[in-house]
Amino acid sequence: MDGFLNFSKEYIPLIDGCISSFYKSKVKNAAFPFMKHYYRDLAAYSSRPGKRVRPLVMLASYSGYKKGKSDMEEAVKLAAAVELMHSFLLVQDDIIDRSESRRGGSALHVMAGERMGRPPFDMSSAAGVAVVLADVIFSNALELVASAEICNRARRRFLSVFASTYEMTAWGQVLDIEMSSGGGLDSPKDTPFTISKLKTAYYTIMYPLLMGRVLAGPDDAAEEEAIRAFAIPLGMAFQIRDDLLGVFGAETETGKPSDSDLAEGKMTLLIQNAIDAFDSRGKEAFLKLFLSPRKTEAGVKKMRRLIIESGAHEKTAAEHDRLIEEAAAALPSLSLLKKAVPVFQGLVGAVASLKGISY
Amino acid sequence: MDGFLNFSKEYIPLIDGCISSFYKSKVKNAAFPFMKHYYRDLAAYSSRPGKRVRPLVMLASYSGYKKGKSDMEEAVKLAAAVELMHSFLLVQDDIIDRSESRRGGSALHVMAGERMGRPPFDMSSAAGVAVVLADVIFSNALELVASAEICNRARRRFLSVFASTYEMTAWGQVLDIEMSSGGGLDSPKDTPFTISKLKTAYYTIMYPLLMGRVLAGPDDAAEEEAIRAFAIPLGMAFQIRDDLLGVFGAETETGKPSDSDLAEGKMTLLIQNAIDAFDSRGKEAFLKLFLSPRKTEAGVKKMRRLIIESGAHEKTAAEHDRLIEEAAAALPSLSLLKKAVPVFQGLVGAVASLKGISY
Repeated sequence: MDGFLNFSKEYIPLIDGCISSFYKSKVKNAAFPFMKHYYRDLAAYSSRPGKRVRPLVMLASYSGYKKGKSDMEEAVKLAAAVELMHSFLLVQDDIIDRSESRRGGSALHVMAGERMGRPPFDMSSAAGVAVVLADVIFSNALELVASAEICNRARRRFLSVFASTYEMTAWGQVLDIEMSSGGGLDSPKDTPFTISKLKTAYYTIMYPLLMGRVLAGPDDAAEEEAIRAFAIPLGMAFQIRDDLLGVFGAETETGKPSDSDLAEGKMTLLIQNAIDAFDSRGKEAFLKLFLSPRKTEAGVKKMRRLIIESGAHEKTAAEHDRLIEEAAAALPSLSLLKKAVPVFQGLVGAVASLKGISY
Repeated sequence: MDGFLNFSKEYIPLIDGCISSFYKSKVKNAAFPFMKHYYRDLAAYSSRPGKRVRPLVMLASYSGYKKGKSDMEEAVKLAAAVELMHSFLLVQDDIIDRSESRRGGSALHVMAGERMGRPPFDMSSAAGVAVVLADVIFSNALELVASAEICNRARRRFLSVFASTYEMTAWGQVLDIEMSSGGGLDSPKDTPFTISKLKTAYYTIMYPLLMGRVLAGPDDAAEEEAIRAFAIPLGMAFQIRDDLLGVFGAETETGKPSDSDLAEGKMTLLIQNAIDAFDSRGKEAFLKLFLSPRKTEAGVKKMRRLIIESGAHEKTAAEHDRLIEEAAAALPSLSLLKKAVPVFQGLVGAVASLKGISY
């Protein structure tokens, strides 16, 4: 795991530093004074501690593919743009999910509400301001893409993959909202799988890898196919790990209560596996708790026990392990520079670890 | 006016055709089948009849500045991107303003609600889906920017102005929401002016002109300054014309009830002028009606009468005329190709006309 960890330690400060100096200059050159305090809020919001997986994977990919002299300074600008796109999506997510906190601080609509002295969830005031501030963040991401000193081919291809990243993630979110607002159990059985693919495997692993690759050039459809073959299983394993942590993870590991996925009624691959494994009585007992709008601690405990009794936790962990094997087997087919291989091995190792999960 | 009208007649079908064929290809190549019906919705939503002012101004600017052979086909792709950005903003606007219709059809969250069988304004279902579908539209705009066959300088500069367009409009919206959700009459007196500048003068006239200019190249700060000197007064006149139409316009001219601005309690420059002109009794009578959450037809009629008695309508129309004069005086300083001058004279003429307004 050390390869990716060391890479993270080196580049997280550079990504965060780029975002921070970008917003410092925005505050300094603000067209109207009222923008200044908001820019400071956006800088603080986007700089909260996080794993920075997406920009790191993009940078690791660029540095792993770039033959000859690499220009990490320009690549870091683009990585910062990737992280700002993430901030933009988090703001919208929190409004849609009615979450009030994010990364150890308030959600952006809560911050806006406090500043305005208004309730946070009203779209005609604080939540509306937050949606529009998210637009500011996204425009700032585009400004970074415009400012990078890269060739025309690289900018075109990067912008094109950047747009796809954004679009496919949005589609995943559309499906997710459709499913959790009524469509739920009537959706095709592979819907949770499709959501995980769009919102995680593509968004967190595959597209960041592709962004780094197209930046390093040249265009090469065969290599992009090899990236897919590696990234999709790794990304699906990443999501499954997250699903297991969301139900069986120690709070120390995840930074959020281990019952949160069950309490929120989040339809994950783990839950799908459990529903498939239940007998009709077990299914009825589980769904009654799972679909109830108000969940109790005892109910969450019971759901956890029913999942374990169904064996779905083991089946899901086995799927995770199989996906990790698939990704590990695909890794050698990538034509990465030798120095980059340990970084990607480390990434696979980090996603492989089920540390902190106990049944 | 004929110059701009003829230009519109020539290019609106090309802009709309580009959007329509873009979405046809999206439907055909959709990564997952569930996307297809949404792509059709987005195509229908973005192709509803409209004036297409922003993409037309961008195209007129490009064709007016481009020396040598112009490539209108690539410019039309970028104009379509400008129109898609507009669609994106309209979707968010309608959710924030709780509007249910747009351009003679349903607002997008209403369309999503009908499809899902859910209430339109719930952020956890239909409104949430609409916000995320707007993201899809914006990513589609970026895809068009990535796909245009233009040089690196043009793409960088275009993307940079495109990002500013988006950012400054968002800032105008932040101010607008702040003002209409409580901050209202305590805001600095020039706030309605600043909102009009950001949301209209910059968004509708200045940035589209700059986008066309940077696309035509070369970079030239003095010319950009000349564009500002022409575009800002013209854009402010455009907004004031809209404000007058919103209170005194015939429905046949505006396509919406002429009392809508008063019924919505929209703080415009006209209203600001009226409030400044009232004596204390008039002000009290007006504000009681204007700030009331439920407006009656009689109340709207009375507000209209109070505005006329204050003379604010004449003062506002005089400001409009002065701004038009300022723009007309600045037009000859633009170094446009000769053939483009009548197009811009036509644009000034269209904004100058107060046809359909009666007091």
